[in-house]
Amino acid sequence: MATGSPAQGERSLEQGERSLEQRMRAIEDRLEIYNLIASHPPSADTGDDRYAETVYTADGVFDRGPNLSGATGNKAIAASLKSEGHQAAIAGGLAHFTGLPHVALDGDKAVVTSYLQILTPRKSGEAVEVPNHGASRGYHIHRVVANRWELIRTPTGWKIKRRTLRLIDGTEPARDILRGALAGQH
Amino acid sequence: MATGSPAQGERSLEQGERSLEQRMRAIEDRLEIYNLIASHPPSADTGDDRYAETVYTADGVFDRGPNLSGATGNKAIAASLKSEGHQAAIAGGLAHFTGLPHVALDGDKAVVTSYLQILTPRKSGEAVEVPNHGASRGYHIHRVVANRWELIRTPTGWKIKRRTLRLIDGTEPARDILRGALAGQH
Amino acid sequence: MATGSPAQGERSLEQGERSLEQRMRAIEDRLEIYNLIASHPPSADTGDDRYAETVYTADGVFDRGPNLSGATGNKAIAASLKSEGHQAAIAGGLAHFTGLPHVALDGDKAVVTSYLQILTPRKSGEAVEVPNHGASRGYHIHRVVANRWELIRTPTGWKIKRRTLRLIDGTEPARDILRGALAGQH
Repeated sequence: MATGSPAQGERSLEQGERSLEQRMRAIEDRLEIYNLIASHPPSADTGDDRYAETVYTADGVFDRGPNLSGATGNKAIAASLKSEGHQAAIAGGLAHFTGLPHVALDGDKAVVTSYLQILTPRKSGEAVEVPNHGASRGYHIHRVVANRWELIRTPTGWKIKRRTLRLIDGTEPARDILRGALAGQH
Repeated sequence: MATGSPAQGERSLEQGERSLEQRMRAIEDRLEIYNLIASHPPSADTGDDRYAETVYTADGVFDRGPNLSGATGNKAIAASLKSEGHQAAIAGGLAHFTGLPHVALDGDKAVVTSYLQILTPRKSGEAVEVPNHGASRGYHIHRVVANRWELIRTPTGWKIKRRTLRLIDGTEPARDILRGALAGQH
Repeated sequence: MATGSPAQGERSLEQGERSLEQRMRAIEDRLEIYNLIASHPPSADTGDDRYAETVYTADGVFDRGPNLSGATGNKAIAASLKSEGHQAAIAGGLAHFTGLPHVALDGDKAVVTSYLQILTPRKSGEAVEVPNHGASRGYHIHRVVANRWELIRTPTGWKIKRRTLRLIDGTEPARDILRGALAGQH
């Protein structure tokens, strides 16, 4: 159940046993988790360190893989948003773009698997005109990454215990993350 | 509460006091709002003026910022989809692409914050072949915009009172919109 | 009701008559369907044939239009993920990226309308440096497609009876799919 399709599994196996309150709570959890995932791009693209400090656990881990810096602990993760590099990326028009995430709820834990694009406006090249939509040199998709979010329920809401990103470039680590969304669904 | 994370705040502060009916209704509102946001790209990319007239309030505002035309009133917003410019964009293969939105519900009002890409097929350049997926010159990401949707509940469903778009290009207005998703979540 | 906005229609027309259990079930269906749609990119990008076999009906249809191969039957659809071509695409860094889908639930059936991007890392061109985010030649958006998913409820969960994709390139077939999300919402 930990990483499978909760709604389906819960319905077929447990519906008779689950109380209305338990079902309502699972639904509210799911919607709260969607908002948590949807809050990440705004926090990254505005460099909101106070939000990051709130949403990661004290021992939370932010792992971008071997080629980019990560951080451990909500305070360090928050501080990284204020780094010179991240602030320069924001000034250049950084945009995180998240698709529909897969959410596997398991009581007081959840695993979310999502795809993320990191975009910036192109600084060179020819502008293209689109009728009724102005002219633009367009955007560069800098990275497309598979994300695994390990969440836990706390008295002040769902929080991030570990977030792991791996670049989708044909190598195995990104596929490992993506397989997590399908585990138990066969 | 107006712009914070409703599920989380509601649970910790008010769960004991909220009736099952109120909780059900908040969930159904949320799902209705997701479908409203998901209906926007199809309406823009097919130029469905009747749908736009239905989904904006009579005094609804569509604000694309200082460099692109906007409109006020559901009839004027609907009419803009039939403009020569917009129809030409559709004929060229216009695609609006929306990510996972953040939804903050507050009774009969809601604020949605979302990212949107506006894409068109490239008209020049070299085609790339991807095995099992044909050849393509690819797509141009013309704009990446932060969207703020101010919604109200009406007897005929949730409607758009104001939609504000700002280009993510490193300037402040887009970040102002994105901060709206995080307000009250610190 | 078949393709309209269920939550809105259900509330205005039927709320008084629908039992709490019926409403809960519609909500759980909706969330299960979101996870089904969110599972597609991981299955396509890892080539998980067992998952595909589980999630399509025995007579399921996968239709990519006149220019790309399709398949009929869950076993044939699953087998296509193991084809030499698809495996080569995965080795090159294939990424399916799905936006927020529109879901129209109608009892034991549902129609989902979604946008999908198919991305691959660029194999040539200049690398761009983004502060705090490394260097990258960026990604090529190979295809942007309108998707129609015809789903049915089965004793083992929601399954795909037909999935139809059409390229958004200014021609009519993609717009036909997109209009399906708006039918009944005027």
